[in-house]
Amino acid sequence: MALLEDLKWRYATKKYDPTKKVNQEDVDKIVEAARLAPTSSGLQQFRVLVVSNQEIKEKLSSKVLNPEVMLDCSHVLVFAAWDKYTTERIDAIYNRTTDERDLPRGRFDSYTDKIKGIYLNQTAEENFIHTARQSYIGFAMAIAQAAELKVDATPAEGFDNTLVDATLDLAKKGLKSVTLLYLGYRDTEGDWLANMKKVRNTTDEFVIEYK
Amino acid sequence: MALLEDLKWRYATKKYDPTKKVNQEDVDKIVEAARLAPTSSGLQQFRVLVVSNQEIKEKLSSKVLNPEVMLDCSHVLVFAAWDKYTTERIDAIYNRTTDERDLPRGRFDSYTDKIKGIYLNQTAEENFIHTARQSYIGFAMAIAQAAELKVDATPAEGFDNTLVDATLDLAKKGLKSVTLLYLGYRDTEGDWLANMKKVRNTTDEFVIEYK
Repeated sequence: MALLEDLKWRYATKKYDPTKKVNQEDVDKIVEAARLAPTSSGLQQFRVLVVSNQEIKEKLSSKVLNPEVMLDCSHVLVFAAWDKYTTERIDAIYNRTTDERDLPRGRFDSYTDKIKGIYLNQTAEENFIHTARQSYIGFAMAIAQAAELKVDATPAEGFDNTLVDATLDLAKKGLKSVTLLYLGYRDTEGDWLANMKKVRNTTDEFVIEYK
Repeated sequence: MALLEDLKWRYATKKYDPTKKVNQEDVDKIVEAARLAPTSSGLQQFRVLVVSNQEIKEKLSSKVLNPEVMLDCSHVLVFAAWDKYTTERIDAIYNRTTDERDLPRGRFDSYTDKIKGIYLNQTAEENFIHTARQSYIGFAMAIAQAAELKVDATPAEGFDNTLVDATLDLAKKGLKSVTLLYLGYRDTEGDWLANMKKVRNTTDEFVIEYK
């Protein structure tokens, strides 16, 4: 029941203690969970940018929903997805895959030809709808890993993508920002949400079974 | 290190033993992890449909990438997201939230007015881009929970949304299918992927730090 307990423990922290920093080992584990996350066709269509630099946090915070949460947290993880699919990106992954598995390059050509046929005939906007979805898998794994380590976290979508992309020079990296995860340690007394009941739809409302 | 070990253990199973079924208790825990997943503004913009009925699986499998994987697996989880945002949907969640927290209804009006101002001025297609993303958080939590229970799983995006939506009557539920997760127990001998090395970008490639 470890994950279920962790998910009950966590909440979207609204007030961090700015004096408490998450140690590098824990940050590394949180990012590692995102790195190990499965993605469509194994392409890992996203990257994680880890911002602990306070000047950069200040720049980014000028256009977020709750600036003080970002400013007080220890680390900001930026999940950023491929701006589009390219032949080179797909081939690079599959060449690595065959190399690491001691298989001949081209072993997965029939499959990669198929996905290239789909993605390379879409617009970059359509591609990004798909790559952004994949980044949410890594995002969730990072949220779960933070909870396991009893590191507080705040999933945050309320930010200005243009500012984040420009500040972190994401276009040059072929990436676009998707979502943020703040990490740190809660200031329980200052956080109105810290002691509030977690509210979810009931299982009956959430699940439909076809037996 | 529980989650990291679980993520290393799991892989996208390609061949299930059709004689082995996942027990209800484990299915319930996997769905529970999705139910507890965080979502944007706490709206839980998705539902999980659990299909163990073989006739329905047969219908769905006629248009999936690997029909035999779906047919042989024990349960198919269908993650389906809200087709659009509505005032009623947002209000229902926030009324529940205030009721369960013994707060006056309307306590979060300034916030819900803000998100209504965004979502209700978008097209249904734009809404669905956002609701679908949320379902990936639940999807990932279900993947992690299955791995914790040593239940094999296959994340699967290669299916016909129109067929799934029609077969499960999703339009009437205000939902659209997003992604599938097959559950079951691997047939190690029949699965070419079972013993293959997991391949990922290196941490240096995956992470960029701004200290």
